[in-house]
Amino acid sequence: MLCFSLKLTAGQVRSRLFVMSVARAFKVLISHPQVPAPALALLRSHGAETVVCQSVPPSRAEILEKVPGMDAIYWAHYQPLNAAILDAAGPQLRAVSTMSSGIDFADVPEFKRRGIPLGHTPGVVKNAVADLAIGLMIAAGRHFHAGRSDIETSQWVTEQIDWRMGVEIRDSVIGFFGFGGIGQAIAKRLQSWDVAKILYTTRTRKENDVQFQAEHVPFERLLRESDFLVVAAPLTDETRGKFNAQAFGQMKRSAVFVNVARGGLVNQADLHEALSTGQFLAAGLDVTTPEPLPADSPILKLPNCVVLPHLGTQTMKTTIEMSLLAANNIINAIEGRPMVRSAY
Amino acid sequence: MLCFSLKLTAGQVRSRLFVMSVARAFKVLISHPQVPAPALALLRSHGAETVVCQSVPPSRAEILEKVPGMDAIYWAHYQPLNAAILDAAGPQLRAVSTMSSGIDFADVPEFKRRGIPLGHTPGVVKNAVADLAIGLMIAAGRHFHAGRSDIETSQWVTEQIDWRMGVEIRDSVIGFFGFGGIGQAIAKRLQSWDVAKILYTTRTRKENDVQFQAEHVPFERLLRESDFLVVAAPLTDETRGKFNAQAFGQMKRSAVFVNVARGGLVNQADLHEALSTGQFLAAGLDVTTPEPLPADSPILKLPNCVVLPHLGTQTMKTTIEMSLLAANNIINAIEGRPMVRSAY
Repeated sequence: MLCFSLKLTAGQVRSRLFVMSVARAFKVLISHPQVPAPALALLRSHGAETVVCQSVPPSRAEILEKVPGMDAIYWAHYQPLNAAILDAAGPQLRAVSTMSSGIDFADVPEFKRRGIPLGHTPGVVKNAVADLAIGLMIAAGRHFHAGRSDIETSQWVTEQIDWRMGVEIRDSVIGFFGFGGIGQAIAKRLQSWDVAKILYTTRTRKENDVQFQAEHVPFERLLRESDFLVVAAPLTDETRGKFNAQAFGQMKRSAVFVNVARGGLVNQADLHEALSTGQFLAAGLDVTTPEPLPADSPILKLPNCVVLPHLGTQTMKTTIEMSLLAANNIINAIEGRPMVRSAY
Repeated sequence: MLCFSLKLTAGQVRSRLFVMSVARAFKVLISHPQVPAPALALLRSHGAETVVCQSVPPSRAEILEKVPGMDAIYWAHYQPLNAAILDAAGPQLRAVSTMSSGIDFADVPEFKRRGIPLGHTPGVVKNAVADLAIGLMIAAGRHFHAGRSDIETSQWVTEQIDWRMGVEIRDSVIGFFGFGGIGQAIAKRLQSWDVAKILYTTRTRKENDVQFQAEHVPFERLLRESDFLVVAAPLTDETRGKFNAQAFGQMKRSAVFVNVARGGLVNQADLHEALSTGQFLAAGLDVTTPEPLPADSPILKLPNCVVLPHLGTQTMKTTIEMSLLAANNIINAIEGRPMVRSAY
């Protein structure tokens, strides 16, 4: 039986020879020493020589020192990925991938202009972010932060029926600003929660509204009708500051606002004002402006605001999946195929 | 058309006369002034004279003063409901209902002995508690409390890939200690989360394990195999202190423990020890010992413990549903029918 396992068909032999023929050595700069081992192993199995930067947080100086002559860059952090890096690498550079869904830190037009493939890792982040988003919907809607503060300040009220009344997800209207992978992963998880309706607003109508019986609505209707309003759209010039005083003023007073996208979609001063004055019930934020958020930020003083330090993708399972996708983006480009997930 | 709406069939007339004939006046003591108005309206529509206590929190003295001569008691708080109350009411008392799922504060054997119907409000609490339980699974498993503390103490770490790594619900084993209404409402919500398996431990095997493809397992297997272990069982002599050092010692180091039942099922000192020493990843508690929990409780010092002030049923929707069920328990007993949800 052991011998049998070594027998190969002619097709298998051809296929293995083909892999070996394309697996010529190429050099990949890894910008961060904590990239999961499976991604490095995958790159190496395709012939990569990996040059791993050692600084945490990543040091631009170290990257600029090591990047010259690299065939590919595996960008595992969120610092500006721009012309200066591409110039330093040199003309042989032919593949770059981030290990992130959002790529607001990358100068995409510069990549396009130079024709250098740029990959990123959307899609696989959806599961970890969707769990967290639903956690934030509940934590905000059920007063997790205020409740804990009540305990810590000996203000836990018992025997009072209408104390810290929250809102439930069943029978409520869930509104998505952005209904791509993350929004749909949230909607998938809410399939058996007896929600009243799913609404969404996106730039296009190409999203999957059949599977989720979701309805595409204008932004104003999304604001007016959502009981839970979840922001899960990329940060672009079009979406920056979209959630401002005017938007918050149209929301239901009982609504819960959740942002798992980027802090820049929200005017944070306006959000503070809306939450302070009870324009809606509560907010749950995984993303803020700036990050890290200063410890004296006024939004940390609000009882009705749950704030997290951008933990959306922070699970081992998703991190490994992201790392493998980034590696596959690079391998595809080096081997002459389109990236799995291209950024442009 | 208006006239037409007044026409009644003979059957309808008989039925209305019957309602009128049973709707004889009866007196109900309401132990709390914040019982939702729909419940009081329902009681009154069946002939009740409602005597509403005014103290918040409810005053035993006021209750004992007002309860003599009552036909029914609507017990909307969690103080001891025992022989002293029944004695004070007098022999005409023929219906009591709590507005709660758990009835550990009621002397059920004493009710049985006297043959006084005692109702409670399980079932309807499941939706609000199930939302909250899933919120706690995510909040604990994704480090909501530690993450916020990191922000508040300027310890938000960026650019470090393996920081505050949490666990996801997909592909995980969800274990329920107790698989009644609340456990099943949680399982229902997790139907589209791609969980690996649902396990449960109960005193009997009568639970609905077909709909959820759930597997009944011994307690030790529940402990050893669960990635998320959710406690949703009543507090009884059998379950008191069930989660102790010995139990925690058998759990996976990556597991998340959630208690939405009663604090008494858990040995809290043992829980503190297990969380301090990393015997499992994190805990989410809606219930503690005692309640209110003192502000200097050691479990509030743990970064991996999310604690809430017993907010499980605190939504207006569920509170109204509980209040109506309690009212219907009383109406049924007064009108000679079995209570909707009897406590014994």
